[in-house]
Amino acid sequence: MALYMGLDVGGTFVKGIIIDEKGKIVSENSVPTVAGEGLADCIETLAENLVHGAGTVFSALAGAGVGCPGLIDSENGKVVFAGNLGLKNYPLQKLLEDKLGVPVRISNDANAAALGEAKFGAGKGYTDSVLITLGTGVGGGVVIGGKLFEGYKSAGTEIGHMVIEHGGAKCTCGRRGCFEAYCSARALTVATRRAMEEDTSSAMWKTYTNENADGRTSFEYMESDVAAKRVVDKYLNYLACGLANIANIFRPQIIMIGGGVAAQGTRLSAPLQRLLDKEIFAGMDYAPVKVECATLGNRAGAFGAAALIVNS
Amino acid sequence: MALYMGLDVGGTFVKGIIIDEKGKIVSENSVPTVAGEGLADCIETLAENLVHGAGTVFSALAGAGVGCPGLIDSENGKVVFAGNLGLKNYPLQKLLEDKLGVPVRISNDANAAALGEAKFGAGKGYTDSVLITLGTGVGGGVVIGGKLFEGYKSAGTEIGHMVIEHGGAKCTCGRRGCFEAYCSARALTVATRRAMEEDTSSAMWKTYTNENADGRTSFEYMESDVAAKRVVDKYLNYLACGLANIANIFRPQIIMIGGGVAAQGTRLSAPLQRLLDKEIFAGMDYAPVKVECATLGNRAGAFGAAALIVNS
Repeated sequence: MALYMGLDVGGTFVKGIIIDEKGKIVSENSVPTVAGEGLADCIETLAENLVHGAGTVFSALAGAGVGCPGLIDSENGKVVFAGNLGLKNYPLQKLLEDKLGVPVRISNDANAAALGEAKFGAGKGYTDSVLITLGTGVGGGVVIGGKLFEGYKSAGTEIGHMVIEHGGAKCTCGRRGCFEAYCSARALTVATRRAMEEDTSSAMWKTYTNENADGRTSFEYMESDVAAKRVVDKYLNYLACGLANIANIFRPQIIMIGGGVAAQGTRLSAPLQRLLDKEIFAGMDYAPVKVECATLGNRAGAFGAAALIVNS
Repeated sequence: MALYMGLDVGGTFVKGIIIDEKGKIVSENSVPTVAGEGLADCIETLAENLVHGAGTVFSALAGAGVGCPGLIDSENGKVVFAGNLGLKNYPLQKLLEDKLGVPVRISNDANAAALGEAKFGAGKGYTDSVLITLGTGVGGGVVIGGKLFEGYKSAGTEIGHMVIEHGGAKCTCGRRGCFEAYCSARALTVATRRAMEEDTSSAMWKTYTNENADGRTSFEYMESDVAAKRVVDKYLNYLACGLANIANIFRPQIIMIGGGVAAQGTRLSAPLQRLLDKEIFAGMDYAPVKVECATLGNRAGAFGAAALIVNS
């Protein structure tokens, strides 16, 4: 039985797993992230811990995949640019292959998470899926015919930077009206706090101040407070607009929602499905698109990194 | 030398070519379109004319490709639905294979045009390209790694029905604010006529009435008339917004503009390139995206239909 190592580089920790071909975790571990040139050494330490934990040897691995934030040239195995990690043109694949002695594949962390959910999570059994991650920003990853789609030089699928309101809210990318500017967890938090400020009779003030309220607050109070409901309805409306765009462009079988906001489960996915059913081009009869929350949580990236090897 | 037949089904005519593998046309012909069940017979007649015109025989063909309007299930070779042709679940591929005795592939006409431009037109030499067609509507076709991308059950790449202005202008698809509602040739015509009505001192009135003015009128007068320039600037601005979305999502090497509006040439493509350079995610240094007008005109569909065979 082949074993696959998946490594997910985060800002604070590098998380890793070894899985078998059915996706069963046989070893799991993490190490603090070392930014800069030392990243490969820190990943090597984690890899050794994982192999040790699984009671196996490197030669028993089919390979190791790595999901890494930033602009990743997956074809050439390089971290082109990763601001938070202080890396530029860093040949991570080659460095790790030399250290570990197994085939290594690298990809952007959001793309890896999409592949992880597609192969082992909510997208299992589908060939065509999109993962939308609602966190600090809005990330996206696309799987077509079972393979990760990354765009030319892996620079595509910046789905959060699709404008859905021309001339609208300012986005970190420099554009105005991006999907991310309306649908990130951060945008939801900002909208929640603003709604509280505008309506100090809102029930949300019972438990929260406008400093500790966040995106969850509106969902928590949506059934008992009209201001909270208005925030959630508007958020869902913009989110459905972006999902319908993605559905019309990629027409996947399933759109999966990940990131912090996905903790809302069917309170999120059920209304989104209803809105998408209305908005999608030519209706749902011929090629329906499901909306579901992702299931792998913060392990999606590590699963997906392992899937880079399963898939190659 | 292998020969390839390409057939492009339009509302009025079916156009056909036979090309060699370098894309040189060795025979060209057309027949009036027969809607309904008789479509395969009418295509057979055209195919016979084409073979005759090339002085060859069917067995010398590597195959015949067909681009057809409507919802086409290219994997199963069926016209799922084509309103204008009065067809539903029409097994066009099988019917033609029986009649012609050569392998047949079918695809949506917009997708075929994208493949045609990619292989033999403005996209020649690139592996990743998108064709945006600005006609009555806004159509799109996407080529990834040299292959046509169509979405699950060929129902994707409805790029015209990507909302770029949430809650904006009503679109024929039922949504509000679609790319098509702002950037079709029809939308440009409507904006031109409205600008004339609002400013009867506009120089456009010298040659046109608000009944015979169309999208070309604003481009014609953009340098001599402020109302015309305003229409063109706004149109380009929305168009660039849609192109930047497509660039951020697919990150192709080139976006090609086809359809009637593309006759404006560099008056269209040069400002669009400048706007895209500003809007694209993370700039143009790493993975630049060119904007150029398509070059095959109304032969793009037939070339692309032939390319369905070259490519298969």
